[in-house]
Amino acid sequence: MFPERLSEVQIAVQHALDQAVARLPAGDLRDAIGYAAQGGKRLRAFLVLESAALFGISQAQALPAAAAVEALHAYSLVHDDMPCMDDDDLRRGQPTVHVKWDEATAVLAGDALQTLAFELCCDPTLGPAERRVALVTALAQASGAAGMVYGQALDIAAETAAAPLTLDEITRLQAGKTGALISFAAEAGAILAGADPAPLAAYARALGLAFQIADDILDVEGDAALVGKQVGKDAQAGKATFVSHLGLEGAKSRAAALIDEAETALAPYGAKAQNLRDAARFVISRDK
Amino acid sequence: MFPERLSEVQIAVQHALDQAVARLPAGDLRDAIGYAAQGGKRLRAFLVLESAALFGISQAQALPAAAAVEALHAYSLVHDDMPCMDDDDLRRGQPTVHVKWDEATAVLAGDALQTLAFELCCDPTLGPAERRVALVTALAQASGAAGMVYGQALDIAAETAAAPLTLDEITRLQAGKTGALISFAAEAGAILAGADPAPLAAYARALGLAFQIADDILDVEGDAALVGKQVGKDAQAGKATFVSHLGLEGAKSRAAALIDEAETALAPYGAKAQNLRDAARFVISRDK
Repeated sequence: MFPERLSEVQIAVQHALDQAVARLPAGDLRDAIGYAAQGGKRLRAFLVLESAALFGISQAQALPAAAAVEALHAYSLVHDDMPCMDDDDLRRGQPTVHVKWDEATAVLAGDALQTLAFELCCDPTLGPAERRVALVTALAQASGAAGMVYGQALDIAAETAAAPLTLDEITRLQAGKTGALISFAAEAGAILAGADPAPLAAYARALGLAFQIADDILDVEGDAALVGKQVGKDAQAGKATFVSHLGLEGAKSRAAALIDEAETALAPYGAKAQNLRDAARFVISRDK
Repeated sequence: MFPERLSEVQIAVQHALDQAVARLPAGDLRDAIGYAAQGGKRLRAFLVLESAALFGISQAQALPAAAAVEALHAYSLVHDDMPCMDDDDLRRGQPTVHVKWDEATAVLAGDALQTLAFELCCDPTLGPAERRVALVTALAQASGAAGMVYGQALDIAAETAAAPLTLDEITRLQAGKTGALISFAAEAGAILAGADPAPLAAYARALGLAFQIADDILDVEGDAALVGKQVGKDAQAGKATFVSHLGLEGAKSRAAALIDEAETALAPYGAKAQNLRDAARFVISRDK
């Protein structure tokens, strides 16, 4: 069952992150890093562990990669929440790092979380050095100025653009901002196994886009108390989203079609991919 | 001759960085990354290439690691210069990234430069995967929350501390903020060769500390036009430095003693280490 499996992942990855943070020198910086690494759905960690399981790689072996992708994700949230970026005071229902500490601590904690992500990808537990180097490379490509950070830059630029983004532009933005790291997570198992990541890449592309559409829907229909951050921000800011382009029902049917596409991509893995199929369904039915 | 050798390094590493930046998607983000990756002494790149040469590793082979350490260094400068950190408007004689663009671009350009550094450490040119993984691990340990970022956090905390830092505290701060990355650079050659990095570590420890003392001296005696950034900031802020603790002459003789120590550490490498010896002398005689 997917919710139970996700809970297991949450516990395992939190433990791995807590252990990594505990090795750092004590102080505000470590506290802020540990705080930022708490909570979240851990969908990306789940994708790492489940894609690894497809190739017979145990959770214990793949865990550092799962922790790495969550550390990377946490860094992006800490920086994105800063006043000069999305300016959010609340994240996962808690004050953001720059609110609880200050902006300098947010910059540094985010920086250190990114570093930690790459360090975790080098953990010998993950297997042969060739595979770990491939993992570091893939994470760098997914998260850097051609991936996640590129998407974030497009998002920031959109705020001051003369015209609202087109659907194509939003899709490209999403492919970077959230899609690239979701794709990395889903392909990580194949990378660790030295297998062809193509079917997982197709799954992740559809899943990532559906995930972003669901996020846009949540910003319209969601309950802030459940979502854990402000809702209604997009419409308030006059921001072009999948919902503003497709309408609420159009967005929902597009997301559903993408989930079908994601499931189809998993066909080569047969029954072993059931948890990944369940995750795809979850992405468009979640309330937070 | 050291100045000529440093010029060669500057050209080679700039070319490598320019090539890496050219592969990124066009836009403000790429422009800001390219801008931040320009100029500088390239002392860290020099240390990588010269330590590699001790073990017969060519400049062509070690160049991605030299570019990596400079990308990492550039990221740290972009973030350190931000208003919530050291708040500097000028760097290497040019407007800082957040002045020329904006704070969001500075956050993102710094983030992407860090990512690029880790990606460069995975370049197949560098050699066997085991060595590249060791390099990524060493860079992460030097630059993260137990290394450079830790030192930066101590530096920020010192600004609001009740009492000026003691000499021990300044030394610990420096070991993180500038020392860790200098040590990484000097040890990189041994890491790439699979050799014992201990003599280079001892050299780098002394060199890094002398470098910081020289920086503190430049803040008192330097010419802003040559240094390329504001001078006199430390005294103005009532900041404890090696100069405020040791006096100007005391600081100079401490730096000179450290350079002797650095040279002694290079004894095992004999004549091959002449460029590294010259670099140590340069560090305390530089005017920028």
